[in-house]
Amino acid sequence: MNASPTSNRLQDSLRQITELLDKHRLVETMVHSQDTRRRALIESLVHRQHLVELQIRLQRLHPADIAFVLETLAPEHRLLVWEQVSPARRGEVLLEASHGVREWLIEATDREELKALLSQLDADDLSDLAEELPVALLQELSQALSADERNWLRSSMAFADDSVGHLMSSEMVIIRDSATLEQVALELRRRRELPEQTDLLFVVDGRHVFKGVLGLQTLVLNEPQRRVADVMATEVVTFTPENKAGDAAQAFERYDLVSAPVVDTRGKLLGRLTIDAVVDFIRERSQTEALNRAGLSGEEDLFAPIWHSARNRWLWLSINLVTAFLASRVISLFEDTIAQLVALATLMPIVAGIGGNTGNQTVALVIRGFALGQIQPGNITHLLFKELSVSLLNGIVWGGAMGLLAFALYQNGQLSLVMGAAMLLNLIIAALVGILVPLGLRRLGRDPALGSSVLLTFTTDSMGFFIFLGLATLFLR
Amino acid sequence: MNASPTSNRLQDSLRQITELLDKHRLVETMVHSQDTRRRALIESLVHRQHLVELQIRLQRLHPADIAFVLETLAPEHRLLVWEQVSPARRGEVLLEASHGVREWLIEATDREELKALLSQLDADDLSDLAEELPVALLQELSQALSADERNWLRSSMAFADDSVGHLMSSEMVIIRDSATLEQVALELRRRRELPEQTDLLFVVDGRHVFKGVLGLQTLVLNEPQRRVADVMATEVVTFTPENKAGDAAQAFERYDLVSAPVVDTRGKLLGRLTIDAVVDFIRERSQTEALNRAGLSGEEDLFAPIWHSARNRWLWLSINLVTAFLASRVISLFEDTIAQLVALATLMPIVAGIGGNTGNQTVALVIRGFALGQIQPGNITHLLFKELSVSLLNGIVWGGAMGLLAFALYQNGQLSLVMGAAMLLNLIIAALVGILVPLGLRRLGRDPALGSSVLLTFTTDSMGFFIFLGLATLFLR
Repeated sequence: MNASPTSNRLQDSLRQITELLDKHRLVETMVHSQDTRRRALIESLVHRQHLVELQIRLQRLHPADIAFVLETLAPEHRLLVWEQVSPARRGEVLLEASHGVREWLIEATDREELKALLSQLDADDLSDLAEELPVALLQELSQALSADERNWLRSSMAFADDSVGHLMSSEMVIIRDSATLEQVALELRRRRELPEQTDLLFVVDGRHVFKGVLGLQTLVLNEPQRRVADVMATEVVTFTPENKAGDAAQAFERYDLVSAPVVDTRGKLLGRLTIDAVVDFIRERSQTEALNRAGLSGEEDLFAPIWHSARNRWLWLSINLVTAFLASRVISLFEDTIAQLVALATLMPIVAGIGGNTGNQTVALVIRGFALGQIQPGNITHLLFKELSVSLLNGIVWGGAMGLLAFALYQNGQLSLVMGAAMLLNLIIAALVGILVPLGLRRLGRDPALGSSVLLTFTTDSMGFFIFLGLATLFLR
Repeated sequence: MNASPTSNRLQDSLRQITELLDKHRLVETMVHSQDTRRRALIESLVHRQHLVELQIRLQRLHPADIAFVLETLAPEHRLLVWEQVSPARRGEVLLEASHGVREWLIEATDREELKALLSQLDADDLSDLAEELPVALLQELSQALSADERNWLRSSMAFADDSVGHLMSSEMVIIRDSATLEQVALELRRRRELPEQTDLLFVVDGRHVFKGVLGLQTLVLNEPQRRVADVMATEVVTFTPENKAGDAAQAFERYDLVSAPVVDTRGKLLGRLTIDAVVDFIRERSQTEALNRAGLSGEEDLFAPIWHSARNRWLWLSINLVTAFLASRVISLFEDTIAQLVALATLMPIVAGIGGNTGNQTVALVIRGFALGQIQPGNITHLLFKELSVSLLNGIVWGGAMGLLAFALYQNGQLSLVMGAAMLLNLIIAALVGILVPLGLRRLGRDPALGSSVLLTFTTDSMGFFIFLGLATLFLR
C-alpha cells in the first residue's frame, strides 16, 4: 500500500470487482441464448475463469475492505462474492461488516459452514458477533472454547451493549511490578507478537491487583536494569466494565488514549479497552443517531429486502400519522372560520412549519449540549432565557416580515396582524418546547435524540394551527 | 486517576467549581447590602480565598477538563474561571476548547496576554488555532518562530480544513534504514521523550524518501543486532497531504491505525497523522453534521450572545420562509375548492407531513450510504427500485388506512379515495426525491447532508398540497 491514498486503491478494487461481476452476468445472458450443449460448456469455462480472478483479487484485500465491498453490492452479487472469499478469512470479514450486512451474511450462509468459519474465532470475536448469531449455534460454539474463554464470552455478553465491559478485550500484556525492564523485554521477545494497539503493558502485583502501566516508550527509553515499579506510571485513566462506552469514548478523546485498563471495583485487572473499539463505537453511534433522528430503527442494510425495509419504517410512520391526525383535528375545530376566509388555509402551514424548523434547531443544540455534557443543572435557566430571547427577537423580525407579506397578498390589515402575532407566539413555544422536551426525556431516563423531534413537531404543528386559527376566530369574524 | 471512572471524577470537579462560583456570587450579593467600608474589606478577603481555592482545583485538572468546565459555564462565570487558570496552561486549554468557546476566550483575553500565552505554543498548535486568531496577531507570532516552524505553519494553513495536510503533525521519530536496532534504541534513549501516540518510527533513506515503518513492538521484539531495513514493515498505509480527512478517518477505522506517515507525491516524508487528531475530526464532524442538518451553521456556543445566536439562524429561517411561502402559494391555487369543502384544509397537512417524514428517512439512508462509500454508480438503480417499492407498499397500506379514517370522519367516499391516492402518490414522490436530491447535490460537488432535507420537505409539501387539492378539484367538484 506504499505511498498511495488508500481510498483510491479501494475504489479501484471495487470497480474491478464490479466489472468482473458485470462481465460474469453478461456472459451468462449471452450464453443463455445459445443452444444448450455449447452453452453449458462455455458457461462453465468463463464462469470458472472469472471466479478464479475474483478469488485472487479478494485474497489481496484486507478483511475490512472485503466487508466494505460486500456492503456496496446488491444481494445477488453479494452472495457470489462472499462465496469466493477463502473460508479461512470469512470469520474476519464477518467481524468487520456492519450489523445489517452481518445479519444478511449469517442468514445466507449454510449452518455447517457458518459453524466451521466461526470456530476459528476467539471469545472476544464471538462476543462481538453474539447479538446476530442464532442462540443454539452460539451455545454449540461456546462448548468448543476453553473454560477461560467460555467464561469471558459469558461475562462480556452479560454487559450492556453500550458498556465498557462489552467493548473490552481479553488480549493484553500483563507484567509484574517486581520485574526489571530487561526481564520484561526478554519476556516480550519470547512472545514474538504483541496484541494489536499495545502501547502500554499493564502492571499487577501478586494478587492480580492493577498497579500501573509501563509504556512501550518507557521500556525503550529507560535503562534495562531499572525495576518496573520505579518507572511505571501510576496516574492512569482506568475504567470499570460498568462504565458507559460513551463516557469512555470522551475520555479517550480528551486524554488522547490508545489503550486503557479495565478493572473491577476491588482494583483487579479484568481487560483492556483499545482505541479501535472506541472509534468503531463512536462511528457506529453517530451513524445510528443520524438514522434514529429520521425514525429508522437501528441500522438498515441499504439493500435489505423490500418487505423488511417497509416494516422497519412502520413504527415511525404510524407515530407520524397519529400526530399529523391530531394536528389536523385542531384545524377541524376552526372549519367555520376557514370557510369564511379561505386565505387562512393557505397561510396556516407557514406558521406551523417555521415553528417546527426553528424548534428543531433548539433541539439539535440541546441534544449536542447533553452529548458533550455541557448542560448542567446550574445553567439550564440561562439556556432557557437565551433561547427564549433569541426566539422573541426572531419572532419580531420575521413575524413582522410575514405579516407584511400577508398584507401584500390579501390587503387585509387584521389578517396580517394575526399572521405576525401567531408567528411570534409559535416561535416562543418552539424554543420552550425545544428545550423542555429533550430535558424531560432525559430526566425520564430516555435518549433525547430519539423522540424529541416528533414531540416538538407535533407541538409546533398543533399550536401553530391553534394559535393562528384561534386568533383569526377572535379578531377576524 | 487511579481506578475510578473519569467522567464521575470530572462531574465532581465541575460540581465543586460551580459551588465555589455560587458561594462567590452569594458573598458578593450579601456584601453589597452592607455598608461600604466593611463591605470592601469582607469582599476582598472572601473573594481572594475563593479564588485561591479555585486556582488550586484548576491546577489539578487536565487542560481538556478545564476546557470542558469552561464550555459548561455561562459567560460571567466563564471569564472568572479562565482568569484563574495559570498563564502557563492557558495555551493548552485554548487548544482543547471547542471552536465557539475558543473564539469567545480569544475575544475575552487582553491582546498582550493573548500574545504571551500563545508564544508558548509550537507551529502545530498555532496552525490548529489559526482560524480563530486575528490575522495580525498570527503574523506577529509567526515572526517569533524558527524558519522551519514558520514554513510548517504556513504550509499547514494552506491545506484545506478537511485535508490530511491540515491535521498532520510535524512531531515524529525518523530513523535511517541503515541503522541497527541497537543504534535506534540508543538514539531513542538520548531523546528521553517520544512524541505522543508514537507506535511507529518512520524509516527514510539518505534522500529523506519514506521507506517503511519500524513499530516500537518490532524494536522490542527483535534482537538488537538486526538492521532496521531487515525488520521494518514496507506494506504501510500512507497518506498525501491532499487526501481528504474523512477518507483518512475511514482508513484509520478500517485498518485500526494509531499513526501513519504523510508523504508527498515523490515519496518524501512530510509529517505524521495520529489517531487523536482523527478522533477529534470524527467527533467534530459528526456533531457539526447534526447541527447542520437542523440548519445551524457550524458550531454555536451554547452560551453565545443572543444577537449572535439569532443571526446564526437567519439564513435557515429565511430559506424556510421562502419554501413555506411557495408551498402556501400552491394551496392558494385551490382556494375555490377549499371554500367548497373545508375538510380539505384539515386533511391536507397530513398528506404533506407524512411525505416529508418518510422522504427524510430515505435521505438519511442515502446520506449514510454516501458517508460510508456504499453507494456506487453500479447500485443506484437497485437502490431506487428498492425505495420506490417500499414506498409503493407503504403507500398502499397507510394510504388505505388514512382513506378509511377520512371516511370515518367525513362519510364522503370520494374524499376518502382522494385522500388515499394522494398519500400513495406523495410517498412515491418522497422516495424518488429522497434519493435524487442528495445524489444531485453530490454530483454538483456539494455536501448532501446540508441542503437535502430542505429541498425534500419543500417538494413533499408543495407536491402533497398540489396532488391532494388537485385530485379533489378534479373529482369532488
